[in-house]
Formats: sequence, C-alpha cells, structure tokens
Amino acid sequence: MDLNADLGEGYGRWHLTDDEALLDVVTSANVACGFHAGDPSIMRRVCAAAADRGVRIGAQVSYRDLAGFGRRAMDVPADELADEVTYQIGALRVFAEAAGGTVSYVKPHGALYNRVVDDPTQAAAVVAGIVRAGGRLPVLGLPGSALHEAAGAAGLPTVAEAFADRAYTARGTLVPRGTPGAVLEPEAAVAQALGIARESRVTAVTGEVVVVEARSICVHGDSPGAVAVGRAIRAALAVEPFA
Amino acid sequence: MDLNADLGEGYGRWHLTDDEALLDVVTSANVACGFHAGDPSIMRRVCAAAADRGVRIGAQVSYRDLAGFGRRAMDVPADELADEVTYQIGALRVFAEAAGGTVSYVKPHGALYNRVVDDPTQAAAVVAGIVRAGGRLPVLGLPGSALHEAAGAAGLPTVAEAFADRAYTARGTLVPRGTPGAVLEPEAAVAQALGIARESRVTAVTGEVVVVEARSICVHGDSPGAVAVGRAIRAALAVEPFA
Amino acid sequence: MDLNADLGEGYGRWHLTDDEALLDVVTSANVACGFHAGDPSIMRRVCAAAADRGVRIGAQVSYRDLAGFGRRAMDVPADELADEVTYQIGALRVFAEAAGGTVSYVKPHGALYNRVVDDPTQAAAVVAGIVRAGGRLPVLGLPGSALHEAAGAAGLPTVAEAFADRAYTARGTLVPRGTPGAVLEPEAAVAQALGIARESRVTAVTGEVVVVEARSICVHGDSPGAVAVGRAIRAALAVEPFA
Amino acid sequence: MDLNADLGEGYGRWHLTDDEALLDVVTSANVACGFHAGDPSIMRRVCAAAADRGVRIGAQVSYRDLAGFGRRAMDVPADELADEVTYQIGALRVFAEAAGGTVSYVKPHGALYNRVVDDPTQAAAVVAGIVRAGGRLPVLGLPGSALHEAAGAAGLPTVAEAFADRAYTARGTLVPRGTPGAVLEPEAAVAQALGIARESRVTAVTGEVVVVEARSICVHGDSPGAVAVGRAIRAALAVEPFA
Repeated sequence: MDLNADLGEGYGRWHLTDDEALLDVVTSANVACGFHAGDPSIMRRVCAAAADRGVRIGAQVSYRDLAGFGRRAMDVPADELADEVTYQIGALRVFAEAAGGTVSYVKPHGALYNRVVDDPTQAAAVVAGIVRAGGRLPVLGLPGSALHEAAGAAGLPTVAEAFADRAYTARGTLVPRGTPGAVLEPEAAVAQALGIARESRVTAVTGEVVVVEARSICVHGDSPGAVAVGRAIRAALAVEPFA
Repeated sequence: MDLNADLGEGYGRWHLTDDEALLDVVTSANVACGFHAGDPSIMRRVCAAAADRGVRIGAQVSYRDLAGFGRRAMDVPADELADEVTYQIGALRVFAEAAGGTVSYVKPHGALYNRVVDDPTQAAAVVAGIVRAGGRLPVLGLPGSALHEAAGAAGLPTVAEAFADRAYTARGTLVPRGTPGAVLEPEAAVAQALGIARESRVTAVTGEVVVVEARSICVHGDSPGAVAVGRAIRAALAVEPFA
Repeated sequence: MDLNADLGEGYGRWHLTDDEALLDVVTSANVACGFHAGDPSIMRRVCAAAADRGVRIGAQVSYRDLAGFGRRAMDVPADELADEVTYQIGALRVFAEAAGGTVSYVKPHGALYNRVVDDPTQAAAVVAGIVRAGGRLPVLGLPGSALHEAAGAAGLPTVAEAFADRAYTARGTLVPRGTPGAVLEPEAAVAQALGIARESRVTAVTGEVVVVEARSICVHGDSPGAVAVGRAIRAALAVEPFA
Repeated sequence: MDLNADLGEGYGRWHLTDDEALLDVVTSANVACGFHAGDPSIMRRVCAAAADRGVRIGAQVSYRDLAGFGRRAMDVPADELADEVTYQIGALRVFAEAAGGTVSYVKPHGALYNRVVDDPTQAAAVVAGIVRAGGRLPVLGLPGSALHEAAGAAGLPTVAEAFADRAYTARGTLVPRGTPGAVLEPEAAVAQALGIARESRVTAVTGEVVVVEARSICVHGDSPGAVAVGRAIRAALAVEPFA
C-alpha cells in the first residue's frame, strides 16, 4: 500500500503542513504547484527533501485560486484548464529534476479533485493537460471517477486512492468538507486506513459498509494529527510506492 | 545577426503584441512565462506557432508583478529570485517541448533586465535559477552587464544584445522608459538596427557615437510599428539565429 | 432610458475599452473594481472622468478572477462572496468620492451576472454584500432574476436592464458568449436598443418576439463598434439616468 | 501610551496572528487590506471584533506583494503607489463602517514602512494616497521619517511609534529583519516597551542608549509570544489610544 499526502501547501510567509515530518512518513508527496498554494521556494525545498528521502514526487494540480485554496469549483473552459494543468506540471518538474528526481504522477487538488469525479469535460481536460506534459504520468484519483475513465481512455495509468481522514458516504464518495464529521479524528483515521488496506472496506457515515479498493491511501497534511496518523499507519502496514 | 522580440505578453482577456506577425519576422522569441504577462494558453499557442516556424523559444523571465508588467524593480531576496526564475523556465519548457521545441535561452524582462545590468546579487540569483533549470541555457543581455559576468562565471554562454527601438545614452545603456525620446520611431529604429549590425555603433541621444557589439537585435513587440520595423530589418540584413 | 457601459476594464499595461469616448456617450458607468479587471490607477482615472461629465458611477463587482476576466463561474461560499462584493464597492467608493461623486449602483460582471440570474444563494450573497456596504444602492440586472428578487426582499431598489449588443433567447435570457451570433454587429445592436426603448421588445435568435422591459440599456465596451453604437443610440433616444 | 499590533495577516486558508487575543490587548489594530495579506472575509471579521472591543481600526497599507508578504521593496511609480494606498484604505473603510467603526489612522507595512523612512518620493506618494482618501487620517510611523515630514507638510497628523519587539541601531532605526537579533525575545520586548514608555529610551544592539519618543508602541502579531508581550505591557502601563 502506498501512502500519499499533500505537501508544500504554504505560500510566501504562510505555512500549513509540517512538510519535513510528513516526508518521513509517506511514500508519495503531492506537491502544490503554485495555483492554490506553493511558491517556487517551497516547491524547491519540498522537492529536495522528497528526493533526499526517496519519496516519490507528484504534481498536485489545482484551479488558479489562491484566495480560496483551490476549494471553489470553477467553470474553466476545457482548453484553459488543460493548459493550466500542463503549466503546473512543468513548473514542478524543473524543481523535481533539479533535485535529482522527477514528477512521477499527478493528483488534482480540492474542488478540481471533486469536480472530475463526475464532470467528463473537465476530467478530459485534466487528462489532456497531463498527456501534453509528456511522460505518460499515472493519475491518482477515485476509482470509477470520470478522471480515471478519461485517463484510461488516453492510455495513462490510473492509481486508485482512498482516504484515511475523510468520512465516506454510502455511495463511496467523500462527505463534503464543511459537513460535520467530514474530517475524521486521528484514531478513526488510522482505523479507516487499516480497514481499507486489509479488507478493502470502510464504514460510511450512515453505517453501511462500503467496498473501497485502493493502491494508495491519502493522509491530509492539514488534518488534525496528520503526522501521527501517518506514523501509525506506516507502523501497522507494509507501505511501499505504488507500482 | 539574430533578431529577437518579446512575445506572448497578453494575459487572459488582454493582448498586447501581434504574436503571429512577429513570429514571421524574428529568429528568437522571448516568451513571457506568467509573472509579468503570459498565461498558460498564450504560452502554449506561442510555443506552437514558434515551433511551426522554426523560431527559437527563449524564456523571458520577470519579477512577479502582473499589475506593473514587471516594470517595477523589486528587492527580491536572492534565493527567492533564483527560485522564481527556475519556476518560469520550467513552466515554459513543458509547452516548448510539447510543441516539439525546447527552451533554448533566457532573457530577463523589464525592471529585472535593467536591475541585473548593475546589481551583482540579483544577477547571480538569476544565473543560479538558470543553472538549476539545467541545459546550460545561453543568457541574452547587455554586454558588460553584471548578468553576463555572472553567467560567464557560472559557465553559461552569453549572447550580447542591442536594441533597435530604444535610445542609447553615451554610456551605452538604455535611456529609461518614460524619458521623452526613449522609444524610437519606426524609421529611426530600422536605421539604428542597421548601424548596429553593419558598423557596431549607435548614436546616443546626446549625439555621441557609441560602440555596440551585438549578436542579437531586439525589437519590442509593443513599440510603434514593431512588425514593420522587424520586416524592414529582416529585408536589409542576413538574419539567422545566434550560434 | 438610461445607457450603461462597462468601463475601466484594463489592468496595468493592458487596456480594453475606450473609456473616454464611452463616457461621452453613457449616463451610467459600470466601473471594474480590481477583481476581474481594473487597477487602482484606472479606477481613479475613470471615476474622475465620469464625475467631470456628470456620468453616474456604478460598481461592477466580479468573482476574483483576473486570468479568466471574471467569465468563469465559481462556487464561492456565500459569506466569502458577500465579503468580496463589499470589498469591491468600498475600493471603488473611495475613488468616486475623491472625484466628487459617489458609487450610486451595483452591477455584477460576467459569470457572476449570469450565475445570479438563477442561483438564489449567490444572489442573496451579492445582495448581502451590497447591503453591508451601506447606502441602499440600486441593483442593475435582469428583470425577474434571482438577483432582483433578493434585492427586492432586502429593500434595495432594482433597475431592469436590457442589452443592445447581445442576442436574446426566446426565454428572454442572453445567448451565451461563445455561441455564434451571441454578440450583435453594430447596426443590429442599435436597432435592438431602439426596439427595447420604444416597444419593450426584442427578436430572439430563434425569431420569436420577446417582451423586454428595461430602464437601462447596456452597451459592452469591448463589443465591435461600441462607441459608435452608443452614439447612435444616444442620438435616437432621449437618454437620461434612471431615476 | 497607545499599543498597536498588525492584525488580519492571513489570506484564505492561511492564518498568522491570533487576532482575537491581540484585540484584547491592543488599543489600535493595524488591519491588513489585501495587498500583502488580508482577504475580505478576514477584514470583515477583524473590523467587527475590533469595533466590539472599542479598539481603533487603522489601515495597514502595503506594496502589492502577496508572495513576498509586502517585505520586498518595490520601485512603484508615485502615482500608482498613491492610488494603491487609496484603494486599500477604501476597501478597509467599508468594513470598518459596516462594523460601526471607521478607519482612523494609516500605517505602512513591511518594506513600504522601511522605504518611506528615507525615500521622500514614495513617502509623498503614500501621503497623497491618504489625503485623497479623505478624513485627514493620522499617519503612524517613525519620528523623523520622510513619511512624517510629508504628512506634516500635507497637514496630516503624525503619531510617533516605537517597537517593543524589534532591536534598534545606534541611529534609532530598526535592525533589518533577517539580521540575527533583529526580533527580540518576549522578556526583552516587554522591557524595551517599558523603557520607551517611561524613559523614552532604548538600548541599541551595539549598546548605546538611544532616545526614542513615541506615542504608540508596536507589538508584531507574528513575533514569538506576541500576545503575552502585549499583556505584560498592558499590565505594566496605562495604555490608552493616542489622542
């Protein structure tokens, strides 16, 4: 099981995640590329720290929305969205390569992540942006999402992901942020991660048991006790990068 | 003699330069990378159009200053400035490569261009950002500038540049924008370009003849009659990319 | 009949509309406030020029989206949207008052304008932001829109608006930008404006005659021949500010 | 003695200062206006909380530089700088007034604060921007600064300020951020504040005793132990708003 987290989500004077500590725990680092968070200096430092530890670097691409941290869905025309995705991958790649690594996967952030679960137009735009960036990068996302369908259709590898620290609905989607109980407490997050890894199942907020197949588990760096949650998962599971 | 121009200096709804027409005239295209101008869609289009015509693509790196079009000098700490330069090169490179080309040189824009004539700290920072981006990219700039000194010290090739459409001082530097007469009329610009190419000299605003050695001549895309000036220069000179 | 136009829609080095010429034609100026266009210097100049001519100043409030010129709908939470509207009104008001005028109405821009036709949550948020700014400002918008309903419920005056230069559907809404024929040619725009003013009707793209009651007619400053269209309307109609 | 602090210096998802706690301690709140920090929602909340407590609201105006937190000096032309100052005051005023308060003074932030100590052109531009905003707002700043000279010449009241938590040079200026020892530890900050209030003197980093006359003392909200420092000063001194 791979373990991924969002990193480098500061901007200038502001910092959000304990990047160094998270990098000691995860196998895949979703690095912000400047559109919802992440300035060039943060990107350089996170890439260097990830490469030092052999942690895989992924591009966490987002809508252009610093003020909303990429959490406000936007009706970006498909061409523009594809171009914005390509731009972000390119900007991160130069730092990854300077650190001796490379960008080895892509994961959409926030509102874009949620939008491309169901929106085939934006999903196809994200995939077009990834294809244009070259390297046939794997796409991390929800299994069954429009994003994964579009990626498969374009010949890109897909990696199914599940969430340690976010509550699930009976449909197998995430309870939206802002809803009470949407973000799990540390102990529940660890338990959910182990359930996903060992039994491919989670218990929805409404009590149903839902099958969740995943090759990577996400711990949100800005959730409560993120580092401790990551350590506990890592201690309990054989964690290794997705193939 | 190489002929270069600034291109892609729009942003979203706004456009400034006649990119298609300029690309038919120049041998090197200085493409804005999003910090003073240039959004991802513009960058993609300009790179594709340049690659189609065999025009060389350069990264026109800038301070982060959309509101001021990169024309306001900033005391950016050296580390941050180097990182911002690397970021811009990476963002452009992915579009250049997707178009079948590559980023083959770097030229600072606006206030940064002027600052690194004399400021060895910022000059070294720009060079550090270029070195980190890899590929030992040539640096277009004023001969004798701090930028060219820093580039030489770092082992990067330097390409001396002169200006068709900007008035010179007796020192061989540019008359600052905003000063009356700083931007030449089309006819004078063509004459100045031919003087540079054929005799390595310009006449300063104060009347002195100044020696100006250059391997590339710049035509500003937003100067009056830029396309016509470029065509006239191209018709009169044997224009080819700098070696 | 009042005549309004969007003005001040440049940013830094970029300009879009012929503000001086438009101000000689309209009775109400929708001034961009910095979120989709409009920097402080442009806002100062447009307010001064409007006040000089006795043209009424309105706040053209937008999503925060310079890269998309406010033309990309955003799922901004209601509280944030209200705050962003208040901010923009305040920023414009200080320039309007410095010029001896004031902000005397509000009109949403672009994607926000379209969104609040049908979205009661965002409509209520815009109205809350206007109410908080004080002065019980009239709200320019489509008659029957969610925006006008929310404004009425909050006790704000509403001013019904129609468009000279945009094609209508049989429902009486605008044909979306990007659709062929969405923006009328100058001659058709003048004819449509006169039809609205004299007979309260327009002919939809599909041929139906639609009743359109309006107290203000909008000419888009960036449509072809905007100034000429405005002059022709003004020559044919008794134009005066809405009461 | 008045006690002031910088507040509202978050942006979107990011937060920096403990605004609620600081508002219980200070008599004057320097509220960020969106150019270096501060989004509309933060501005609304801080203004409301300040007005509730009877804390005076001031506009903390800055260069437009989110990425650099306003700590990078910029060569902004005087006209643009004045306009940017006016804009920020207007944007804050609407929230202050909605909360039942008003903007009652102005204090430049960061690099702009330091620049207008010595730069008469930018100092005059800041003052022009304040004058245009109306209300003859007092200007908080270093005694003897170019800013205070320009303010005096324009007929604006000036309020001399000193710093609890920043080391002084023998000249009476601040040791630049980034220099070791530039930011004092909590205990030293309290002692320095009391020395300023009771004896109008501080001890410079180089040991000299320097006379510092001030009517307001600043505690930086993002310095270590800022709230505790403010409480200790407030407990030891009779604190009241400057007249």
